[in-house]
Amino acid sequence: MSVIRSAIQWEQAAEGIWRGVVGVPEAVTPLTVSPPSPRREALAALGDAPFPLPQEQVVATVGAGRIVLRLPLGESDRLYGFGLQFLRMNHRGRTRCLRVNSDPVVDTGETHAPLPFWVSSAGYAVLIDTARVLTVYAGSAVRLDSERPPKLKNRGYDEDWAATPLSDSLEAVVPGETGVAVYVFAGAGDRGDPQAAQANAMLSAVRRYNLFCGGGPLPPRWGLGFWHRVSMFASDAEVAAEADEFRQRDIPCDVIGLEPGWHSHCYPTSFEWDAARFPDPAGFVRGLTEKGFRINVWEHPYVSPASPLYEPLLPYAGSHTVWGGLAPDYADPRAASILAEHHRERHVGLGVAGYKLDEVDGSELTGSSWMFPAHASFPSGLDGERMRQLYGVLLQRLTAGLFRERDRRTYGLVRASNAGAVSSPYALYTDLYDSRQFVRALCNSGFGGLLWSPEVREAQTDEAYVRRLQIACLSPLAMMNAWASGQRPWSYPGAEAAVRAAIRLRMRLMPYLYSAFARYREDGTPPFRAMALETGYPFERLGPEAAGFDSTAAPYGLYGEDRSIDDQYMMGDSVLVAPLFPGERSRAITLPAGDWYEFETGASFPGGRTIEYAAPLERVPMFVRDGGIVPLMPSLPHAPKAGDRVPLEIRVYGKAPGVFRLYDDDGETFAFERGHCRWTTLRSDGTSEPLSGGGEAYAYGELIWRHMGDPSSASAF
Amino acid sequence: MSVIRSAIQWEQAAEGIWRGVVGVPEAVTPLTVSPPSPRREALAALGDAPFPLPQEQVVATVGAGRIVLRLPLGESDRLYGFGLQFLRMNHRGRTRCLRVNSDPVVDTGETHAPLPFWVSSAGYAVLIDTARVLTVYAGSAVRLDSERPPKLKNRGYDEDWAATPLSDSLEAVVPGETGVAVYVFAGAGDRGDPQAAQANAMLSAVRRYNLFCGGGPLPPRWGLGFWHRVSMFASDAEVAAEADEFRQRDIPCDVIGLEPGWHSHCYPTSFEWDAARFPDPAGFVRGLTEKGFRINVWEHPYVSPASPLYEPLLPYAGSHTVWGGLAPDYADPRAASILAEHHRERHVGLGVAGYKLDEVDGSELTGSSWMFPAHASFPSGLDGERMRQLYGVLLQRLTAGLFRERDRRTYGLVRASNAGAVSSPYALYTDLYDSRQFVRALCNSGFGGLLWSPEVREAQTDEAYVRRLQIACLSPLAMMNAWASGQRPWSYPGAEAAVRAAIRLRMRLMPYLYSAFARYREDGTPPFRAMALETGYPFERLGPEAAGFDSTAAPYGLYGEDRSIDDQYMMGDSVLVAPLFPGERSRAITLPAGDWYEFETGASFPGGRTIEYAAPLERVPMFVRDGGIVPLMPSLPHAPKAGDRVPLEIRVYGKAPGVFRLYDDDGETFAFERGHCRWTTLRSDGTSEPLSGGGEAYAYGELIWRHMGDPSSASAF
Repeated sequence: MSVIRSAIQWEQAAEGIWRGVVGVPEAVTPLTVSPPSPRREALAALGDAPFPLPQEQVVATVGAGRIVLRLPLGESDRLYGFGLQFLRMNHRGRTRCLRVNSDPVVDTGETHAPLPFWVSSAGYAVLIDTARVLTVYAGSAVRLDSERPPKLKNRGYDEDWAATPLSDSLEAVVPGETGVAVYVFAGAGDRGDPQAAQANAMLSAVRRYNLFCGGGPLPPRWGLGFWHRVSMFASDAEVAAEADEFRQRDIPCDVIGLEPGWHSHCYPTSFEWDAARFPDPAGFVRGLTEKGFRINVWEHPYVSPASPLYEPLLPYAGSHTVWGGLAPDYADPRAASILAEHHRERHVGLGVAGYKLDEVDGSELTGSSWMFPAHASFPSGLDGERMRQLYGVLLQRLTAGLFRERDRRTYGLVRASNAGAVSSPYALYTDLYDSRQFVRALCNSGFGGLLWSPEVREAQTDEAYVRRLQIACLSPLAMMNAWASGQRPWSYPGAEAAVRAAIRLRMRLMPYLYSAFARYREDGTPPFRAMALETGYPFERLGPEAAGFDSTAAPYGLYGEDRSIDDQYMMGDSVLVAPLFPGERSRAITLPAGDWYEFETGASFPGGRTIEYAAPLERVPMFVRDGGIVPLMPSLPHAPKAGDRVPLEIRVYGKAPGVFRLYDDDGETFAFERGHCRWTTLRSDGTSEPLSGGGEAYAYGELIWRHMGDPSSASAF
Repeated sequence: MSVIRSAIQWEQAAEGIWRGVVGVPEAVTPLTVSPPSPRREALAALGDAPFPLPQEQVVATVGAGRIVLRLPLGESDRLYGFGLQFLRMNHRGRTRCLRVNSDPVVDTGETHAPLPFWVSSAGYAVLIDTARVLTVYAGSAVRLDSERPPKLKNRGYDEDWAATPLSDSLEAVVPGETGVAVYVFAGAGDRGDPQAAQANAMLSAVRRYNLFCGGGPLPPRWGLGFWHRVSMFASDAEVAAEADEFRQRDIPCDVIGLEPGWHSHCYPTSFEWDAARFPDPAGFVRGLTEKGFRINVWEHPYVSPASPLYEPLLPYAGSHTVWGGLAPDYADPRAASILAEHHRERHVGLGVAGYKLDEVDGSELTGSSWMFPAHASFPSGLDGERMRQLYGVLLQRLTAGLFRERDRRTYGLVRASNAGAVSSPYALYTDLYDSRQFVRALCNSGFGGLLWSPEVREAQTDEAYVRRLQIACLSPLAMMNAWASGQRPWSYPGAEAAVRAAIRLRMRLMPYLYSAFARYREDGTPPFRAMALETGYPFERLGPEAAGFDSTAAPYGLYGEDRSIDDQYMMGDSVLVAPLFPGERSRAITLPAGDWYEFETGASFPGGRTIEYAAPLERVPMFVRDGGIVPLMPSLPHAPKAGDRVPLEIRVYGKAPGVFRLYDDDGETFAFERGHCRWTTLRSDGTSEPLSGGGEAYAYGELIWRHMGDPSSASAF
């Protein structure tokens, strides 16, 4: 069993991006399933950069059934990313198992989206393009031949003994010996101020990754409205009545989601409308669409023997069933095409606007073990382990294509994803519930080109419901999911005013968010992201956290572990969101350097410090940076369409000069890719000018400027 | 990537035991590290039995980097074992990852002792002899080609939809394609009553496994006394004073344990006495030994650069360090012999009576990731993954040998173990704390030839301390571990009387427990075991547990999952222990069929039902079966030695005729293996007769019979 060092063949893949190859990479990987369409112009605009690591210290060894990649780590390097992590931001010193897991309740690295991708505070990012379950020793393994070994301590006498000694390298282990490709993305920050340089360089590396993968998705405008998923047992009439009530109660809503009971058979699933609950699906979809609702339908991949797809898909099925249904091999284009043909006719052709793709993940070890096993075999040659890593991405691509071929944009939900799917119009969700984890996931999602919906299901108290809903309304996809509870946003009577305010705020922010998504597509800047990507931002709030150690309860707690700032985040370029969590009346908020202004009042707060800030139930603490510009629209019942003429309130905060690039288009089609869109430059001096596409008018009408520092200014809506 | 069916070559290994081989098994496995010395006579006495499964349905496939073994499952089969499981008893329907884990907080199957061994209620046991991380789909994976597929359900309408459909087979996945050996152990129960047959057959299968591996260990008699581990910072004088206080307070104590601070350097460890805290180690050990205490010393395997062993062991070190120390390859006899030579001279030769072997486990993914990684390489050719699976067993064998070569028995503690080590004189322990898990582990340990010490560290309340200590005192190794807290059994003033009563009960039970261990060695019956191994015992208390499902909090909860009886257990043949947990004043206790009698009073309770039973703080609910005989001794300060003449109270419970085989020997050496021991048959009619070794006298003197049904009888001590 010999382990030998293997050469890495490096080549430049784009400005500031390198691809290194060990052996012969496998045929199916995240990037073969989502082949990158790099946005070359934007990458060129970011500029070139040198290889960000000592290349000779990036080492591969092959043997004993695995490939090990080793990269050097600096003493203070922090490592972010690794997909949709709920439990931690900085993974330095931890071992990460990047396996898809629908119940990631322990801090192992397993997640719904196990991206083999991380960003270093030293100013670079790394992608290991594998569908295998990667294990990354992110500075948790120390080699005997280390050139910079950790300092020796004596636990019997030294108080600073550490449970995890500082390692000088990261080791990533790929199962199998065939070969693998690794991508390195350079950062290019301001080299002056080290902290600013770190943040800028990390953001640049993230943007390079996003742009290399095609840039972010531009959802249809309605996708940024409010979503409501109804009880799985609801009939067409009940759904219609529930939708109507949103209008009656003056609560905006754009999307109604149907849960499993719309299928004639579910778990496993028929993909056919249940004749009792939905006798006239086309009429049902048409009726709601005419009232300004879009219909999103739940499905999972497992094909019931009661489905007309069962016989056609049987030849492409994996060796194991899930809930008695087939697990088709969607890596085989013939299987994909059978499903696509059915969905065209039975769903998309009827006007269904998108999908919720459930249970494309499974947990190998926790939960009820319902997923096909790792050793399952599929006709394409994939085993269950790799199929699970890719299933979510395969179904995202398959379903998104059904809309693109009709020149309609979609936006949907998916429970699993992987690297490369940056431009996929899907937000992740989970069945687990913890408000702090949900906000941490919002922070972490931005490190790896992911979108995350911290959806609401139900709550124990009015307060908890409101606080959860506020987080959802300040996220990529604002949704209530009542599949099991049958609840509605007005089910908590004491909370209805605060709930209405949160959903209306979501609608008012639509022009701001839509522009942030357009920018995600154009230059790769994630619309929701961690404070760690902000220039001049401290990485931790409280410094070393000795409290992590308890000699009886946690004998291996970490001395000296950082407390990452994982409870507040940036939404777009200017707005800092710091949600209150249930039980809180006030909270600590860390403001970056510079002046900051309350979103609602414009009151100023000097930054570069941590403040204690109180807010009543109906308010989410939000601050806007100096010079920040936020375009708002009236809280309409649903998103405007091309041809509407919606007035915008353009809020200008603080005294510094600022610029905002407002984006508009038809909100529905891919015409923007053919140049049919409009960018407008808004300046804090109250002027604006068309940047591109100035000739066409879409949804926006009058611009009403509001200088938030002016006490005489009042809200337009 | 072809997967092909491979023949299994079966051969009979002993009466009722078969070995099946696929390919060429690897060179290092649990059974090559602990080579079985089957107790042939006892196995012959159990008798032969047919192969307990349809052999043609046991199928192996090889390919795609793994070997998959498939075994048929009956509809109602329950599967027990899989090592030291904290979180579950019946694993049917679950996927088990049998990887060593020092922090097994999630129900994945990972554990301190990941035995690739299970027992089926259908009356057989299976061992897959591999050092690889085995994944067992214990009825959690359903094949498309299943001959008995689960019934199709519609979650939209069927209330009995199940998150885990019933699979007709178990699939066990061994990484690597080289080869593997599988052992099948037949049961041989009473075929009349199906439930009794199941229990008997399971117990027979367990006994065959235990006997095949050499039978249980016989601890020195002092090992069954009370153990106390002192603060890691204690000096020799402080330890001696703490020991003296046990005598002053009339609390029995046999063993004092030293924690890491006795080493001159720890974490990593020097293995040398700290000159400041223990300037005269020989005198220290001698002094305490003369007062009737034995000294057990903590160590872990990692060698400090400050240790005299560092240079000699460097050539045998693994590729990665742990806390800066070497991780020696103890699979190499040369490395083992270097450590052994040192320990002979510096510890055992000074009178040290045993070891606590810490941190021979690690958690790949949780905790602080301090262990060497799975891809670490060792000179013997093992990788880190397999070394972790075997490290605990390697060090048990190494250290146990140091005592056997001096004809001294030892008894110690270890944090990791594996299959084959049945006769190893070590009890497992953990750093995790949960009283219910501790009792469940007591139940589960008996399925796989393991011993488990539910040690006490500290508690939030007097009551919690007492309840924990009671569980410890009715376990294989009764210990308080104050390494971090520095507490003592009298640290909870309100609890001292109840604590003294629990420890004195432990001492009084010594003849009963010592005989139970002797029987473990002689016929393989585990001294502590689950109710599921009792004849005529129901498998669950409450029937199907619909409460496992919550459509929001636990959408994949299991409908119809059994609630195993995991909170009471059998201690020896006659005593049922049902501890109260903190906060309880009474609890449900399920009594098997027949009459049962309170241990302390002899009051009778009809069995075959579940009773609600109250007990005050100082009392643990204990019941003795009809015809049960329990020999007790006075609560001495420490265990008797050969030559002492300790009177025994022989308690006889109920009306049915009963027999007890009382064991005695010198309590210290291996002379019993050479026939120097005595078995005496005690009968419920108050008669006794020598069974063997009648000519020699050891520790026991007068037998005082006490018929617990007789109201005029009073306790002798």
